[in-house]
Parts: sequence; C-alpha cells; structure tokens
Amino acid sequence: MNQLYVLGIDMGATNTAFGVVDARGNILFRDQISTTGYATGEEYVQVLGSAINALISKNNLQRKIKGIGMGAPNGNMHEGTIEKAANIPWTKTVVVPLAKMITEITGLNCKLTNDANAAALGEMSYGAARGMKDFIVITLGTGLGSGIVSNGQLVVGYDGFAGELGHSILVRNNGRPCGCGRFGCLETYASATGVARTAREFLEIRQEDSLLRKITCRPITSKDVFLAAEEGDRLAIEIFDFTARMLGLALCDFITFSGPQAIILFGGLAHADKYLLEPLRKVIDENVLSIYKGKTQLLVSGLKGAEAAILGASALAWE
Amino acid sequence: MNQLYVLGIDMGATNTAFGVVDARGNILFRDQISTTGYATGEEYVQVLGSAINALISKNNLQRKIKGIGMGAPNGNMHEGTIEKAANIPWTKTVVVPLAKMITEITGLNCKLTNDANAAALGEMSYGAARGMKDFIVITLGTGLGSGIVSNGQLVVGYDGFAGELGHSILVRNNGRPCGCGRFGCLETYASATGVARTAREFLEIRQEDSLLRKITCRPITSKDVFLAAEEGDRLAIEIFDFTARMLGLALCDFITFSGPQAIILFGGLAHADKYLLEPLRKVIDENVLSIYKGKTQLLVSGLKGAEAAILGASALAWE
Repeated sequence: MNQLYVLGIDMGATNTAFGVVDARGNILFRDQISTTGYATGEEYVQVLGSAINALISKNNLQRKIKGIGMGAPNGNMHEGTIEKAANIPWTKTVVVPLAKMITEITGLNCKLTNDANAAALGEMSYGAARGMKDFIVITLGTGLGSGIVSNGQLVVGYDGFAGELGHSILVRNNGRPCGCGRFGCLETYASATGVARTAREFLEIRQEDSLLRKITCRPITSKDVFLAAEEGDRLAIEIFDFTARMLGLALCDFITFSGPQAIILFGGLAHADKYLLEPLRKVIDENVLSIYKGKTQLLVSGLKGAEAAILGASALAWE
Repeated sequence: MNQLYVLGIDMGATNTAFGVVDARGNILFRDQISTTGYATGEEYVQVLGSAINALISKNNLQRKIKGIGMGAPNGNMHEGTIEKAANIPWTKTVVVPLAKMITEITGLNCKLTNDANAAALGEMSYGAARGMKDFIVITLGTGLGSGIVSNGQLVVGYDGFAGELGHSILVRNNGRPCGCGRFGCLETYASATGVARTAREFLEIRQEDSLLRKITCRPITSKDVFLAAEEGDRLAIEIFDFTARMLGLALCDFITFSGPQAIILFGGLAHADKYLLEPLRKVIDENVLSIYKGKTQLLVSGLKGAEAAILGASALAWE
C-alpha cells in the first residue's frame, strides 16, 4: 500500500472544499459541495462522502490515501464532533460525530479539528512554521481564531476546545459587547468586523475628512478601510494602527503564556499586513516582558488563501 | 542497575534543599546547604555536589539514582542554565550552565527548570494533577509563578522561558507598577506582596475599623491579612475577595488559552484557600467563556509545603 496522499476537507459556512494533497503540500485533485441545504448531518455526510469517493475513484487513488483531515467550525479534535456551529443549523441542538460518519462512508480514517487549529497544522507542515515547535497562528477573519502549537503539538486542552484567544478579555472596562455575551473580547477589536466597528467609532468621534465618509448607503467593511488606506487615507491608516495596537497588546500576553518562536497571521484581514505588521511589531517591542523582547517573529501566512484551509486540514491526516 | 530513585534539588534564595525520592513520592533521605555566600557558580556547585555525593554514599545509593531534577529561579529547561536570578549574585552577569556542572561533579544526568515548572511536574507525578494531561499550577508566593502542562508536557516555549503568567497584564489603565518595569501585571495584585499592597490601599481609601489598623510600626504582610480574616475582620476578608476577583479574571483568560482540566494553587498564599477558593470559583463561573463553564477544577496543592519543591524538582528526573 503506497499511502502517498492525504485528503483535506475545509468545511466553510457556504461551501465544503476538499482535495487530495501530497507530502509536499501540492493539491493534486479537488472538488467541493455546498455546505447548506441539508436537514441533518447524515444528509450532509452522504453527499460529501459520495463526492469524496467519486474524486478518489476517478483518479485511481483507492488505497493510496492515508487518511482524511477536516477543519470544521467548532470542531472538537478529541471527540471528532462538531456542535453549535453558528451557520450550520443541524449542529444547533445535537453533537454530530462527523469524523466517525465520514470514516464509515469513505473507509478512511478521519480526524477533525477547528479551522484555526487546522491552519496551525498547515503552517507547520507546509507554511511559515515549517521546522517550528512553538508558535501561534492567529486567524483574522470575521472573528479572531487561534491555533497554538507547543512542543510540536496542538494545544487542544482537556476537552478539545482550548485556544479561543479571540475571547481573551482585552478591555475590562467599557469593552465592546461580543457575540459571546461578554464585553471587551479581543475579536471585537482585532478582526474584520472589529476593524469595521473601529471605523464607525472613528467616523463618529473624529471630525477630519476621509474617503470612508463617502460610504453612506451601506455599512463600512474592513475591505473599505483597506482600500481607503491604499489611497493614502489618513483616518483609514489610523484605524489599522489602532487595530494593531489592540492586537499587539494581546499578543504580548500570549507570548508570556507560551513563549512562541513566531506568531503567524492568517486569513482575510492578514492581507492588510502592510498596515498591520509594522505597528504590531512596534507595540510588541514596546510592551512585551523584557525576557521575550526580540524573540518572537511576527509573520504572515505564506499559504495561498484558497488552498490554505484544505492544506491545513489535510495536515491532520499525516499525524 | 536498579535505578529506583531520583534526586530532587530545590534551589531557594536562602537554602538549597535536596532529597532522594522514590517512585511514590517519598523523600527518603535529605540534606541542605546554604545558597548564599559564594562568589561564583563553581564554588556553589562544588559545595552542593560534595553534599549530594556524601548523601548518596552515606546511604549506599551509588548506581541506584536515575538522575537529578532541579528547580531553580529563572531556570531554563532547554539550556540547563540559570541567569539573572534576583537574589543570587553570581547569576547577574553570566549565564551559568548549572545542570552540566552538577552532572560533572555527581556523574548523574541533571535537568533543571524554574520553580513553578518543577511544582507543575510535582503535582503531575505525586500531587493533585496525577493522571491529568492539561492543567496549570499557579504559585502564589512573593510573586506569581506558573507551570503550564499541555498534552502531558510542560509548556516551556521556544527559548525555555514560557509561562510567566504573573506578568500578564491584568489592568491596562492605571495598573500598579510592577518590578518588571511595566504596569498592571497580575502578580502586583495576586501574590503575597499583592495582598499587602491591596491592604495598604484599602486602609487608605476606606474608613471602617479593622484589626489591620493596629499594625503601625511595620509594613502589613499578607500573613497579617490572613490572621485578621481568621478573626472575622471584615476588611481583611474583602481584601481576599478583591484578590480572588483579580486572579479569577486572569484565570478566565488562561482557561481560554489552554483549556485546562484543573488550575492548582500552590505556595504560601494558597494556604489562605478558605478565603480565596469560594470567591475565585464564583468569579470564574460568572466570567469564563460559556464553552468552558464548569469544566476547569480549582484545586489547592496537596503536597506538603516543605517537601513540595523537592518532589517537584525530582519529578523532572523521571522524564
């Protein structure tokens, strides 16, 4: 049996993309199905499993796949389950043993974790963290996710849900309300939605002109702020400075916890790295505990956006 | 070779205690030397190594000791070195390869880590964390130290200095000045000195009577606050409530990071557990992210104070 490949599944809120990956991180074959439109997890797995089996047989890969790795929202690596994923109705009230169900229909061993942990494994196997044993991946998307690797292993914690760094409390007084029901969580400041909130606040409080003031018929997004910054808009750049300051202060505490060799920014907002990295480095340098000064690299994911999630998930299957 | 025993060394600022430990955590033989009065690390190791060799030969334990584990201030497990330990002059300007030097003089493999990491290993081998793979030990002494275990392994980080949770920033505005040069560090609130600082602040700001007001000829200590609480002193109990609140808020963030099965309080101030545990549990229950609610046990170290440090250090040698 030449098990030269693994299969990675990225379960997003809209689509579920999957691909066959070789040991060097090339995605050789890929396909996708819709994530939405199923009444139950069984229906979803039936469609997904059939599509995977079809991709495998079409490319004559029977018995050549070592296993399946899957990144799924609120995925629990210990249990191989998902539950209470915000945009997937059939996870609302039941804990779905997704990994086991996929194994049953494909005959392949399936491991599952959340998206940020999958990203961390992807960086370790194929990306910016190759050769590193201690690092943190921060995913900057709608929210802020995190995948922590210590001693070469994912930190998943006792019950499989460790590493919710987006819900570290950054601002203890008058913090922004968070979807989790608490106040001042990091992700209300450092995320795509956090940037948009900061933009709204800045525009209200401040007087100066800005390209962002021209957007009146719809809510401002982080992309608007990015595009304005690209035009040299001073306020937009200050919005990123503020975001970097909030994230940087939190990163100082994360460094104090796990002493990482690198912190790697991943996801949509990380593409604004030209506005984030320099102020982030400055904030960390000025605020981190002295014994850590200059020791933690700040990097941006080198994995291509569309492929990163599949690669990250597939890395689980090599473990 | 029946290597049934290990030797644990607890290097304190005043004394260095060491003992031969069996697999069940019994200290069979012990001795100590002074930590102070040496001009160089070589002199210290000479005296320590001779005392260890004497203890071994006196008890006919040649070839029965598997190795040596040492807990030392600012000990670096990766390198086996200590440096810049606050009260040990010969570590001020040079990095001392203590583990290597002890191996040379005793012929026994020596591993070294900082006190809090040693405490964590001790709890895992002999104490409250037996059988656990994910937990955090918080040492509440003059400062606040921490030993973090994830996946059954110490989190030491890239350079060996991870886990300085006492220097997480708890209060970002108007925080108390910390010895590290920054402001608002957790240990300025939650430690023996933190309790004493809180006592001074409370006595200044508040009007009500308290047993603590009778202490005028010397600085108030955390022990004074404990004794006053034992007498039912309302202000003293509120000082512990405040301490527990500050520590509890920080623990919520630590739980978010590593998802531990338990947090174990260790060290002098942990003895005030009757005033700390109940409010701590309440603060955590009210403030932790919902997916962690009710999952992390809050425990007090079961290891006897005088023995805990030797046991903790010795646990390193079983690894």
